[in-house]
Amino acid sequence: MRILGLDPSLSSTGWGIIEVENNRIRYVADGFIKTEPKTALTDRLSMIYKTLCGVIEAYKPDEAAIEQVFLNSNAVSTIKLGQARGVVILAPATYHIPLTEYEPNQIKKAVVGVGHAEKHQVETMIKVLLPGCRPKNNDSADALAAAICHNSFHGTHSIKGFK
Amino acid sequence: MRILGLDPSLSSTGWGIIEVENNRIRYVADGFIKTEPKTALTDRLSMIYKTLCGVIEAYKPDEAAIEQVFLNSNAVSTIKLGQARGVVILAPATYHIPLTEYEPNQIKKAVVGVGHAEKHQVETMIKVLLPGCRPKNNDSADALAAAICHNSFHGTHSIKGFK
Repeated sequence: MRILGLDPSLSSTGWGIIEVENNRIRYVADGFIKTEPKTALTDRLSMIYKTLCGVIEAYKPDEAAIEQVFLNSNAVSTIKLGQARGVVILAPATYHIPLTEYEPNQIKKAVVGVGHAEKHQVETMIKVLLPGCRPKNNDSADALAAAICHNSFHGTHSIKGFK
Repeated sequence: MRILGLDPSLSSTGWGIIEVENNRIRYVADGFIKTEPKTALTDRLSMIYKTLCGVIEAYKPDEAAIEQVFLNSNAVSTIKLGQARGVVILAPATYHIPLTEYEPNQIKKAVVGVGHAEKHQVETMIKVLLPGCRPKNNDSADALAAAICHNSFHGTHSIKGFK
């Protein structure tokens, strides 16, 4: 089974694919979709959606995982993140790939073992858990972490999408 | 020229189409896309996007207009609106239809003549400006208002999309 992990943002959306076989996980691919602030919002959202559709067609994941949104007090940032998140969620939905949402602490706990781990600890553990993997950047590392978390929780709860 | 007006929200996204010919506007169609809170977010976003793509394929608008986002202090509402807005914006982007964003007061001013008009005044004026039109609900009325506003401002500013 292949799992697609997603870490959405308007400026740089991370994605990562892992393969699960006989209870072992293996790195397949990761990357990030960078869009420039000077580009029109329509084009930025379109680029994120189309690239993710391309990733899904190339790697054919069976399930997908995404980090629950971090709500900050800046409404402008929140709406920007929300818009990016909408098209990121739409990509697996278009291919009928079930998507599960995880809390940031669940993801850290699944990867590092503790819910309050630092960012660099997450990256270190990804390299340990996925030999040969050198995440392209922080965003693709976070996406791989979401995929790893989904594997840990897989089967313990519904994965028919979240509300 | 045909203009598509859009009023996004996760629970009910409004859309409206007007035709502009020899400086006169005419009602073509309007509607709203209702999604249920009990439905998975993936399916709700997918339904909004697919329905809007269907509307665009059916009515073939040349340009599109959307109301600038109303930022409220509730971060959860803002992220929900953002996610819906992301897929709403993606629909015209998919068909390379230029989209322009207008402030709520610009829209009210274009339709009613004053920037601080009440909701019912907007609806009354839509019926006057678009004879034969009975908007399906408040959301499709707001979408038609955005389309009317776009016609008023058309040519006075760039419509290559917003940032």
